[in-house]
Amino acid sequence: MQAYEVFRDLAIILIAAKMMGLVARKCRMPQVVGQILAGLIIGPSVLGWVQQSDFLAALAEIGVVLLMFSAGLETDLKELIRTGPVAFLIACCGVLVPLVGGALLYMAFYGFAPWGDEEFYKALFIGTIMTATSVSITVQCLKEMGKLKGKVGTTIVSAAIIDDVIGIVVLTFVIGLKNPESDAGAVVVSTLLFFLVAFVGGYLFYQLFRWLDRRNPHTRRLSIAGLAFCLGMAYIAEKYFGIADITGAYVAGIVLCSVKDSSYIAQKMDTGSYLFFGPVFFAGIGLKTSFDNVNATLIWFSIGFVLVALICKVIGCGLISRVCRFNWNDSLKIGVGMMTRGEVALIVSQKGLSVGLLSAEYFTPVILLILISSVVTPILLKILYAKDSPLQGASPAVPKG
Amino acid sequence: MQAYEVFRDLAIILIAAKMMGLVARKCRMPQVVGQILAGLIIGPSVLGWVQQSDFLAALAEIGVVLLMFSAGLETDLKELIRTGPVAFLIACCGVLVPLVGGALLYMAFYGFAPWGDEEFYKALFIGTIMTATSVSITVQCLKEMGKLKGKVGTTIVSAAIIDDVIGIVVLTFVIGLKNPESDAGAVVVSTLLFFLVAFVGGYLFYQLFRWLDRRNPHTRRLSIAGLAFCLGMAYIAEKYFGIADITGAYVAGIVLCSVKDSSYIAQKMDTGSYLFFGPVFFAGIGLKTSFDNVNATLIWFSIGFVLVALICKVIGCGLISRVCRFNWNDSLKIGVGMMTRGEVALIVSQKGLSVGLLSAEYFTPVILLILISSVVTPILLKILYAKDSPLQGASPAVPKG
Repeated sequence: MQAYEVFRDLAIILIAAKMMGLVARKCRMPQVVGQILAGLIIGPSVLGWVQQSDFLAALAEIGVVLLMFSAGLETDLKELIRTGPVAFLIACCGVLVPLVGGALLYMAFYGFAPWGDEEFYKALFIGTIMTATSVSITVQCLKEMGKLKGKVGTTIVSAAIIDDVIGIVVLTFVIGLKNPESDAGAVVVSTLLFFLVAFVGGYLFYQLFRWLDRRNPHTRRLSIAGLAFCLGMAYIAEKYFGIADITGAYVAGIVLCSVKDSSYIAQKMDTGSYLFFGPVFFAGIGLKTSFDNVNATLIWFSIGFVLVALICKVIGCGLISRVCRFNWNDSLKIGVGMMTRGEVALIVSQKGLSVGLLSAEYFTPVILLILISSVVTPILLKILYAKDSPLQGASPAVPKG
Repeated sequence: MQAYEVFRDLAIILIAAKMMGLVARKCRMPQVVGQILAGLIIGPSVLGWVQQSDFLAALAEIGVVLLMFSAGLETDLKELIRTGPVAFLIACCGVLVPLVGGALLYMAFYGFAPWGDEEFYKALFIGTIMTATSVSITVQCLKEMGKLKGKVGTTIVSAAIIDDVIGIVVLTFVIGLKNPESDAGAVVVSTLLFFLVAFVGGYLFYQLFRWLDRRNPHTRRLSIAGLAFCLGMAYIAEKYFGIADITGAYVAGIVLCSVKDSSYIAQKMDTGSYLFFGPVFFAGIGLKTSFDNVNATLIWFSIGFVLVALICKVIGCGLISRVCRFNWNDSLKIGVGMMTRGEVALIVSQKGLSVGLLSAEYFTPVILLILISSVVTPILLKILYAKDSPLQGASPAVPKG
């Protein structure tokens, strides 16, 4: 492929995503929904103008990493430490309930299977796909509403990060149950090690950035170094610790969130995000969707899969939030905010395919879950937040798009 | 390759390019030089930390397109129309002199060949490689010095754009001489057609943007639409008219340069450029360089090739500028500014290879020419501009990097 061929795809994605984003906002929905639908419309499912390619996938990956870095940068560290233990509890329940729910759903469709049976692992794997929350859509949505920094926002983001890690541990554990080669203990150790390294290395980098910041505040080198740090952490997390790159990028953001110029860096990242990488990522979700080889059982299973995945997350996270003294409305917000699934669910499915715990047709329900949760969550969140302050209009904290 | 693998390369490129850029500035050289050298150092020639990949090449292509779009956006249209005829003359001489010089150089090394001989076409092709100026490095360098908008700056950019077009016509003509399939006349027609379409379509888009600008000044949709327009024009130029994508992007910038918010759009593009795409492009030039299979004749030929290419451009463009009533110093600036060669020279070489007019070893002199002209031009330009105003320090128009 010639390099210039990508310009066409990018131009179509940018225009379609922005137009549908504006339409979505007119309908009082978050712009992200419009961007995902734009991808669906221009993608193979409807018009077929743009095909998913390795290049677009890599750009989308940069997009989601930038998004998580921004989320980290905008974190109120004191608030995170305060919400940490609660977030951990919420994440645990948010993993456990869908894991059990998914396994029961599979057994309801294909018959009960005892522990140790091949079918039992398959059932457990369906649950595993449901565990990992993808917080990017929720983050974008809270950002648009200016609610990312609040107590609920911080709790959701922290819980989603922790839940990612637990989700990966569960994945390795389930695969390890069937295949004695991979070692669940080693995964736990490497995860702990990553956070240890991130803590120590992060402190050094924090001092480095504070020094840079004092010498040259508001300079380009600051935002370039920040971006490089974010990309480096994303890479190290995946490559050496087997942890999602977005977790690495989020941690990089947390490390820099107390630097005095953190909002300056965040602002530069945001320009890159909304102008280019964001639309490519969100439209990319729609782009990946295809509705080929679908049959009746699969449709019923898919409906069940989506419902169980959404409801289990709301129940698991919502109830434990209520137990942790959030009021009912805030508990519901947390449950709904954790509902979204994204690329991690796809990565887990891919893994299941390669180890023989999942067959290819189950990709359809997973993609449906990603799509539906991405569309439904922002709408519900908006409704729930509107209940708090009926006078407040759309996106007060963000300049007009 | 996993998507996260690119993060490592990008992080290394960003850090190395920025650090070497700052070192270059400390040595009173333009930052671009440092960025190219950074690519050379981290690339296969020295450390081998980063390999050129399709993904990086595509990002670099977006980078150079963004750069040309910015250059177009910052154009003073009245100045361009005023400099147009002069720029055309300069471009013609800047193509003709190196074309003849390159052919004579080849004959000096490998013996005289009469018109119609196989060797004659090969000699002519060596000249053809020398014709197309790559203005991106000069643009970046003039930008850093705050001299892009001046009469000399505008003349250089316009001449380089025109010279690109003439270079492509010459290429097709030379190939056409050997191979009767391609039709030089058709190339001239399609080039004229492109500018006609760009003129008519550009006027419509200009009106569209003026309308957008009046309704929603300083909004994200404006810069997103601008970026999409730039990418679209780059694509259309290459795909349907066989004209370099950077020419399309530059024309897109020209179309929008009279919109009231053009500097707002340019500012957003600049953030993307300096933060991400610019370093990837400039470091990419160094990254491509490799010094394998080099022998004595090739070294001598390469030295001759580089000298002839640089000197012929300075003589061709400089003398005709003097004839057009620029003073000697400004004429020299124009000649030197037109000296840089870039990706177009590589594309032409690639084409020569595929039609059998060039063998692969001649890539080494071409890469050397790109590298040396990229390093020498900014230094000379800085010296020439310093003569004008001995009191003026470095980069007055650009915020601290």
